Amino acid sequence: MTWSIINQSLEEADLLNQESIYALGNGYLGVRGNFEEGYAGRKSIRGTYLNAFHDVINIPYGEKLYGFPSTQQKLVNVIDAQGIDIYVGAAQEHFNLFSGEVVSYTREMKLNDGYTERVIHWKSPSGQELKLRFRRLVSFKTRELFAIDIAIEPISVNGEITIVSTVQGDVENYTAVNDPRVASGHAKLLTTQAQGSENGVDYVQNETLTSKLSVSCAAAYSHSGAASSEHVTEGNKINYKASFSSNSPLSFTKWNVYTDTLRHGEQSLQQAIHIAADLASSSSFEAQLKEQKQYLDDFWYRSDIVISNDEALQEGIRFNIYQLLQSAGRDEYSNIAAKGLSGEGYEGHYFWDTEIYMAPVFLLTQPDIAKQLLIYRHHILPFARQRAKEMGHAKGALYPWRTISGTECSSFFPSGTAQYHISADIAYSYIQYFMATEDVDFLADYGCEVLAETARLWIEVGHEHEGSFYIDEVTGPDEYTCCVNNNYYTNAMAKHNLAWAAKAMQLLQQASPERYAALIQQLELTADEITVWANAAERMYLPYDEALGINPQDDSFLRKKVWDFENTPEENYPLLLHYHPLTIYRYQVCKQADTVLAHFLLEDQQSLETIKQSFDYYEKITTHDSSLSTCIFSIMASKIGYDEKAYHYFQETARLDLDNTHGNTKDGLHLANMGGTWMAIVFGFAGVRIKPDTLSLAPKLPSDWDHYQFKLQYKQRTIEVTVAASGITLTLLAGEALTVELFNQPVVLQPNQSFSS
Amino acid sequence: MTWSIINQSLEEADLLNQESIYALGNGYLGVRGNFEEGYAGRKSIRGTYLNAFHDVINIPYGEKLYGFPSTQQKLVNVIDAQGIDIYVGAAQEHFNLFSGEVVSYTREMKLNDGYTERVIHWKSPSGQELKLRFRRLVSFKTRELFAIDIAIEPISVNGEITIVSTVQGDVENYTAVNDPRVASGHAKLLTTQAQGSENGVDYVQNETLTSKLSVSCAAAYSHSGAASSEHVTEGNKINYKASFSSNSPLSFTKWNVYTDTLRHGEQSLQQAIHIAADLASSSSFEAQLKEQKQYLDDFWYRSDIVISNDEALQEGIRFNIYQLLQSAGRDEYSNIAAKGLSGEGYEGHYFWDTEIYMAPVFLLTQPDIAKQLLIYRHHILPFARQRAKEMGHAKGALYPWRTISGTECSSFFPSGTAQYHISADIAYSYIQYFMATEDVDFLADYGCEVLAETARLWIEVGHEHEGSFYIDEVTGPDEYTCCVNNNYYTNAMAKHNLAWAAKAMQLLQQASPERYAALIQQLELTADEITVWANAAERMYLPYDEALGINPQDDSFLRKKVWDFENTPEENYPLLLHYHPLTIYRYQVCKQADTVLAHFLLEDQQSLETIKQSFDYYEKITTHDSSLSTCIFSIMASKIGYDEKAYHYFQETARLDLDNTHGNTKDGLHLANMGGTWMAIVFGFAGVRIKPDTLSLAPKLPSDWDHYQFKLQYKQRTIEVTVAASGITLTLLAGEALTVELFNQPVVLQPNQSFSS
Repeated sequence: MTWSIINQSLEEADLLNQESIYALGNGYLGVRGNFEEGYAGRKSIRGTYLNAFHDVINIPYGEKLYGFPSTQQKLVNVIDAQGIDIYVGAAQEHFNLFSGEVVSYTREMKLNDGYTERVIHWKSPSGQELKLRFRRLVSFKTRELFAIDIAIEPISVNGEITIVSTVQGDVENYTAVNDPRVASGHAKLLTTQAQGSENGVDYVQNETLTSKLSVSCAAAYSHSGAASSEHVTEGNKINYKASFSSNSPLSFTKWNVYTDTLRHGEQSLQQAIHIAADLASSSSFEAQLKEQKQYLDDFWYRSDIVISNDEALQEGIRFNIYQLLQSAGRDEYSNIAAKGLSGEGYEGHYFWDTEIYMAPVFLLTQPDIAKQLLIYRHHILPFARQRAKEMGHAKGALYPWRTISGTECSSFFPSGTAQYHISADIAYSYIQYFMATEDVDFLADYGCEVLAETARLWIEVGHEHEGSFYIDEVTGPDEYTCCVNNNYYTNAMAKHNLAWAAKAMQLLQQASPERYAALIQQLELTADEITVWANAAERMYLPYDEALGINPQDDSFLRKKVWDFENTPEENYPLLLHYHPLTIYRYQVCKQADTVLAHFLLEDQQSLETIKQSFDYYEKITTHDSSLSTCIFSIMASKIGYDEKAYHYFQETARLDLDNTHGNTKDGLHLANMGGTWMAIVFGFAGVRIKPDTLSLAPKLPSDWDHYQFKLQYKQRTIEVTVAASGITLTLLAGEALTVELFNQPVVLQPNQSFSS
Repeated sequence: MTWSIINQSLEEADLLNQESIYALGNGYLGVRGNFEEGYAGRKSIRGTYLNAFHDVINIPYGEKLYGFPSTQQKLVNVIDAQGIDIYVGAAQEHFNLFSGEVVSYTREMKLNDGYTERVIHWKSPSGQELKLRFRRLVSFKTRELFAIDIAIEPISVNGEITIVSTVQGDVENYTAVNDPRVASGHAKLLTTQAQGSENGVDYVQNETLTSKLSVSCAAAYSHSGAASSEHVTEGNKINYKASFSSNSPLSFTKWNVYTDTLRHGEQSLQQAIHIAADLASSSSFEAQLKEQKQYLDDFWYRSDIVISNDEALQEGIRFNIYQLLQSAGRDEYSNIAAKGLSGEGYEGHYFWDTEIYMAPVFLLTQPDIAKQLLIYRHHILPFARQRAKEMGHAKGALYPWRTISGTECSSFFPSGTAQYHISADIAYSYIQYFMATEDVDFLADYGCEVLAETARLWIEVGHEHEGSFYIDEVTGPDEYTCCVNNNYYTNAMAKHNLAWAAKAMQLLQQASPERYAALIQQLELTADEITVWANAAERMYLPYDEALGINPQDDSFLRKKVWDFENTPEENYPLLLHYHPLTIYRYQVCKQADTVLAHFLLEDQQSLETIKQSFDYYEKITTHDSSLSTCIFSIMASKIGYDEKAYHYFQETARLDLDNTHGNTKDGLHLANMGGTWMAIVFGFAGVRIKPDTLSLAPKLPSDWDHYQFKLQYKQRTIEVTVAASGITLTLLAGEALTVELFNQPVVLQPNQSFSS
């Protein structure tokens, strides 16, 4: 069952988590896996989201200093079209799984078919007996569509079956106090502008309070012949009520179509109504399933990772890859939120998670999506330039630590704005994209500009000290130490950013002197400035401790006291929920990989010995309180040769949400960790690296596995990698002959041929 | 006129500042210098405050991390009894200085008499002509009393004169957005519990929303014979209306009495009514003035500083000393707010300002008030212990950076809670008090406990590194660099705190073995723990830079870039209002004295050469954006021998509020700076220091002055110090013979004799 996620629990605590697990999406539209009929009053986070569809809310401060953002964006829980209530028999008893007798119940997410299903055999309190099947999909082909299909087989029903389907405009966002990872206020963000029924299509149009974005939902229906039906408006809710005889099976399809003014302009409501009506009349749920299947066959051909003899892991990996696909924005307004479209944790914001943990998956399997993610960053470049100015820099671009529409949404700068590294992370992603695609046009249209503006930032923020280039008062990825000088990660990434900014300009000059000249003019750039970048890159200070033979996380890190792990009770993790930041900052303790992450991303900057010693040092003081940590430790353990450790860390990542190991899956899935699973296999076990001139591999087979297999898209080739006990096989499935590196040795791959070792 | 503050401006911009300048208070009750009749609609910050009378409000956060305080206290603007409106003549025209013709107008604050006065000659728009004199006082003898006396002399009035006097229960706090130094929300904090008139006394009783403290104001009247009079209740306002013939001069006295449940318990309303009625019937305004005068004669005898031939400076100094007297709390609930009782800036919170900038003035002139200020800190010790626990420390006391009732009110910890030095500052003040009074009983009852608990904090927060005692992740006084390691000021003050905690316990053990034993038991203290303090003090790391010969402000300070002062336009100061904190943190730039302050407070820890070189270094990079800065630079310039500089800095401090040089006097007076003025003369020009065993002096005469003179209270003596061109004279006016140090030479002072050199 490695293509299915199956669950039968009706426990209250499980249901909230399953809402995130069974979330459906297509990068534009996301719907949590709520039950159409609800849980009879039990707690639920009912949610439907459009990627990037946000309101703007005020950020409150006790003491507001200069440059603290006064507003932030917040992903809005939009119109709820999940609601379908079924009333059965003479007494019109309400169908739900918390009354009567649930004879059987199974829920399933079909990863290769692209839909979820609930199959139920139910007896009502008064003994009415029926079987039901709910299927739902969010279409990969028609991004606006969320369809629900219900089949009811009456076993023993006395009287009519009534279906009441709802489009609910009165919705709220979820809030929780005292958890900084979830929003704490601003629940009600929408007002209803229009609602009604038109030719059998029910619709609601809502507008956000402040950003004045408008979302429309139109629901059309196709179903078995009904005894009667009517459309009824109640407040901001439109009900469609249809009554059916219980003599024969019945089917009922609800076609929900979501549009917004960001993507559909002023006519978005009309478009929603039109698309819904059209689908209800000319399509069928089965036809939609076929389209899903077609899309996913192609997707899985390129993106699947096959693992032998471990079903739980296989399931975890496929689930993660699938959820990445469901979450990634496909237009310039949207990206991948920290929780994808599966929940409201981190308020739908985009972080560095995209570039460091998720873009690599797309880059090597679905490069078109990777490209879209980069286009989004280019789209918000004007805001990043503006933010750099606010932060006192004469030039350059400082990307916001968290954002939707482009402005900084972080209100606590020590672990927000101070994470300047995000600008280098984005630059890194552009560089990786170029190295894996050789797409000079993209470099000219988007990449050079971003690389230049981020390079300028480092010149602004850093300074020369004793012949080295220093960067002061920034926070690295590890938020357990904030506002430090010469954070190794930041300096290493800035060095890469600066060097490549200079290199990219040179590449462009060679490829297209005209475009180079135009860009130089547009950015008011001089050759001198480019030389300054190259020089700063060369002289970048990368802290190194002679005695320990490691890269210190920052200038003062190694001088601090080591956290007293021995006397820290298990329940005090994650530390951030149990200790004041100052307390945490005072010790050597890491939330996540920081220097170790830099060693992964830029492995050629240090010797293997330094990398190994650093790994040993930081591993002892890292809590992995961030879900972004263990995947990196797994990759680096693989590189160093700590094979058991690599496997152990990999296991911690692979099923994080399926097993709710971080305890907050209800707030949404940990998308970056999902990317991390893929990376732990491809970059970790298989040792894949995108190098400036080649793709290098150094595969190992975890001892518990017979073999594993995956494909890579690289410079317009499709390469299949199979790692088995019997050996490694590389097959060039598509594209021209190519030389790659296997264990540092060049290997020539010929079209449709395999190379084995 | 050096005993008077005189002003004649009716400019709108001036009036707001004058409200703070002409504020009256007595440490318990404070009233801003508003006009009784208002400004005819112009902007005003109308305020009456009871020291420590506060409400509790929520602190909002965008992201709330562990240990961030969820509530804070806020000084409440209480019932307004300032209101008196006068209507003149047949048309009953409203008297105010913004209609008709102001023939003459002068306002005066009489520093030696203890009241303010407005003398006005006015013609109404219709030509009614009269002279008015308003006098008001807040009594130093009857702390609850705020009296207003009005004399009206009709010159040419046709018809009656009506006086409408108000007790207004419907009041609000002042708010301003975007200035972190003023509160931004929570205006309405009181609800009215009772109101009415009883035997000619009008009263309102209000209660705070959350802290449930109750304040009462009762107003009684005595005046010339009236044609008619009545008490009228309008909403939460009680009016007393009296009509007078305009044939003869009239006088009208309003006796406002304020009580609260903090100080007067449950019967506070009855007490207010009783006191007001009693005063109106058995006292007179003139009798009150006499009492004020008696009190102030004694006060000025001990506290005055006489300066020859500079009236503006003389005026500034006396004004400052007087405002300190008006602001200092005299009970265990209250202290000295950053703005005294003159405004709402910093929300009535108590900071380290008390111990470092104001307590020294009282210690050497009014030691009983200094003692009260220390008792307050002992009173809130339980909260400081609790806060230490919240901050992850097993033992010890961490005083709140800002508070009223004892819990931390700072919502931005990098320049709030991180300023751990406040605990050492409080310890320092206890130590100074002991050195200047030899009061062993006080040490036993209060001092040892505070010293022990603060010493424990340093052991908790610091750690051993390479044989030295390091303190990481704290912020020193200079808020332009936050959360650093080994801040020189903090380490130096902690060293002093630790050493004296051990010493105080030893002193107590010698003086009273029983009380020592009891304290040891109460605090669960061991001899070992005391040894740990002494050892840590000895091994305390005090950063020193060999190359520059200075004490670096912290471990990384000297490695940062120096702020680009040259390209910073004048209007960008204070920097904190024009640059993001991260930008500021990134540079060598100081808001105020930090290392230089440590060199003043603990001058024996470094050589004069290091002190001088440090002064030279830090002076270049200090913006003095804090009003706490220039006085310290003045003192240290005096010490070093930069006499002109000392005088220059002194001049910047002496009239800061009178001349509104910081532009925000409207929000309240800069009390700490006022203490700084006194210190710049006594500690600066006169070189006074309280040493462990003696009082040392090293007086100089600023070249612009003929002479200056002041008195000191020291070990139950009164010493008069006169510094003139002709020489220095020390006179022991009261107390037994005493040896002091003059220019490091012992000098024996005999009772009632002068020593001259």
